[in-house]
Formats: sequence, C-alpha cells, structure tokens
Amino acid sequence: MDFLNRLKFDQNGLIPAIAQQHDTQMVLMQAYMNAASIEQTLERGRVVYWSRSRQSFWMKGETSGHIQRLIELRIDCDRDSLLLLVDQIGPACHTNRLSCYYRAIRDNEEVEILKPMI
Amino acid sequence: MDFLNRLKFDQNGLIPAIAQQHDTQMVLMQAYMNAASIEQTLERGRVVYWSRSRQSFWMKGETSGHIQRLIELRIDCDRDSLLLLVDQIGPACHTNRLSCYYRAIRDNEEVEILKPMI
Repeated sequence: MDFLNRLKFDQNGLIPAIAQQHDTQMVLMQAYMNAASIEQTLERGRVVYWSRSRQSFWMKGETSGHIQRLIELRIDCDRDSLLLLVDQIGPACHTNRLSCYYRAIRDNEEVEILKPMI
Repeated sequence: MDFLNRLKFDQNGLIPAIAQQHDTQMVLMQAYMNAASIEQTLERGRVVYWSRSRQSFWMKGETSGHIQRLIELRIDCDRDSLLLLVDQIGPACHTNRLSCYYRAIRDNEEVEILKPMI
C-alpha cells in the first residue's frame, strides 16, 4: 500500500478520519487512524480507528455491534486528512444517535438537533 | 459564547473542523480552528480557520474569493470536533476542485475522482 508512505501523519503517527454515510451523506463522526489501522480497515473492509484515550486499536462497533463497513477511503489534497465513506450499522454515536454531531449553535446557544435512536 | 469554554481543544488550542456543503452534503475539507477563529466565524458569518503552517488566522477565500458562508456550526458528542455546514463559493480546494478529497483508494491504488473546476 504505497499511498500509506505518502500520508502525512502527525507527531503521534495519527491522521484525522471523517466517517460519512455513503448514501445519505450524513457526516457521522471524526476520529483518528494510524498506518496500521488504515491497513486493517482496508484488509477487513471494516473501519478500525486508533483510540487516543486507550492507546489501542478501536474496531468500531466491536462491542456495540454498530460497525462501519468501508465503502471507500479518500485522501485530501494535503494528504493529512481522510474521508471514509461507510455503511454504518445502527447509530454511529455512543449516545445512540445516528451522528455524533447532534449539537448545533443557534443564536449563540447550544441546541440538541438529533435524538437517540433507541 | 459559553459553549466555547466547554469545547476540548488540543495542546495547541486547536480543534478539527470539517466543512460540509449544506445543500449537496459534499464534504469539502477539514482544517483547524481555535477559540478566537470560532468567535470570528460566528460573528462574521464567514469561516475563519487557524493556519497551523502560518500560525495565523486563515480567513477562507480571502485571496481566492472562494469563501465559505457559515450556515450552522455543530459540535460532536465529545466536544472535540466541529462540523461546519457552509455555503462554499467556488471550489473549496486550492487545486480548484470542489472538494479537497479528490483521491480515492481503489484496489489499493490511488485514483483521482474529481477534476479541477477551472
């Protein structure tokens, strides 16, 4: 996977990755990957992030079952940001919301714009 | 703007921000903001990032005219990532492509999937 050598990882070896639902185009979440988690993601066809808090691989949905099937991995112009087109099973957010971006700023106040699915 | 105090900025005072075109839902780019650039963005209704390479405010489109009008700012569950719904004037990418994510990995090879607009 030659392209891995051309990616620009930060000082911790990480690169931000945005997950977008491939059909509805909803932006679901943003986390981080390292080179090994990108390889695993492409090999397994399921998204594996790197957890900064746990300092370990984070196979999305491993415990919840809310996995992300990889449709396509895209790279930005500067090679320092990834866009993952995915098929998300169930809610992407650990709060059981479809997307992690469930708060909006309206009139300088936080508003909840998305309810939990379950 | 109380919500600013609840955001989780990294050790450099930055937070990743994803720009998404509000109507087509295309993911355009991902950059970084600090508290002051978020304030400016909300006050002016135009997106202002923080340039890590130049260590200065980066008023998107200041020289190119390819500005991003802010439609809505959203915050994720962990308060450490932002989603900006924008109205992008012209191409978002400095390569004159609509989106910065113009490379896809297909069969482990990089493929260009988006041509420059001009």
